[in-house]
Amino acid sequence: MSSPEIDALAQALARLPGLGPRSARRAVLHLLKRRETALVPLIAALQSVAANLSTCEICGNVDTRNPCGVCTDPRRDVRQLCVVEEVADLWALDRSRLFPGRFHVLGGRLSALDGVTPEDLSIAALVARVRAGGIEEVVLAMNATIEGATTMHYIAEQLRGLGVRVMQLAHGMPVGGELDYLDEGTLAQALRARRLVD
Amino acid sequence: MSSPEIDALAQALARLPGLGPRSARRAVLHLLKRRETALVPLIAALQSVAANLSTCEICGNVDTRNPCGVCTDPRRDVRQLCVVEEVADLWALDRSRLFPGRFHVLGGRLSALDGVTPEDLSIAALVARVRAGGIEEVVLAMNATIEGATTMHYIAEQLRGLGVRVMQLAHGMPVGGELDYLDEGTLAQALRARRLVD
Repeated sequence: MSSPEIDALAQALARLPGLGPRSARRAVLHLLKRRETALVPLIAALQSVAANLSTCEICGNVDTRNPCGVCTDPRRDVRQLCVVEEVADLWALDRSRLFPGRFHVLGGRLSALDGVTPEDLSIAALVARVRAGGIEEVVLAMNATIEGATTMHYIAEQLRGLGVRVMQLAHGMPVGGELDYLDEGTLAQALRARRLVD
Repeated sequence: MSSPEIDALAQALARLPGLGPRSARRAVLHLLKRRETALVPLIAALQSVAANLSTCEICGNVDTRNPCGVCTDPRRDVRQLCVVEEVADLWALDRSRLFPGRFHVLGGRLSALDGVTPEDLSIAALVARVRAGGIEEVVLAMNATIEGATTMHYIAEQLRGLGVRVMQLAHGMPVGGELDYLDEGTLAQALRARRLVD
């Protein structure tokens, strides 16, 4: 790998999450051996995205359209809004197709440690969306972390009195989870939220 | 991920070795969020390689120069030649900087199962390089597999009588290896090649 161009490509690929220096070199080799079937199509795909990239002005999703494909989808139930921390969370929930409504991306979570305040997140825009009317239920789908919970409670406070149901995700044992391997916090949640056997 | 451009990029990335669908989506998100610092530089690195890509006419290495950087490096000992199966093997050995000579890439290994015959590999070119003179030692650095060994013995036969020392790599316990976890073949090799304690 003495060529500077190949080195530069390996370094650019190694910066992607999930690829270390070793797998980046394997990826480079894969691309070098398949110029027409892998290298050229990858360049085209990247260029197409780079040329059309934008952030949705309504929900904060990253898409090649603005407003994004989720916000313009006529089959979505506009009465339900799911609030998430990051675009990755929106994609994860959207892939599962379990949520029929639209989304709102905060762009992070409140964090005293990292100096993230409500002004750094898309909270004012969320309140404005709810105030504009038409939304009946807001699901606060934050991560199950301390910062996620702090963010959730702060937003719930902001939405109080706006006439929407503010919901949170259920906590408990993950499907397939084994009691013996669960952390104490999850166990406590699962016990606290216990319900009658169907 | 409803945009076809983003889907196409995720699929192109997922085809790279080491990236599955999930990590490809994370990589896409990483690129989308860092248009100027990650997406644009990656496109530039790929284009630069695609524009200059070539296979070295001497050794079969993939490089942006032809002859490649290894073959044109004046500090290399031209009397020593290391024969490897794939370009990845050349890179692995070259990174370790343990071999001071030049390389020869076969482009695969003999395989009755996959129908790979000597004519499919760069063996005639290897014999021609050795016949051309100047080479004193050939190290056959094939993989320690049945097919690697078959290939090694075939090439050793072709090089017989050409006045070069034909060597193979040592087999035995890997550094840091624990006896209890080694396979029987490695144990047998390590025992067979035993030597006096220094």
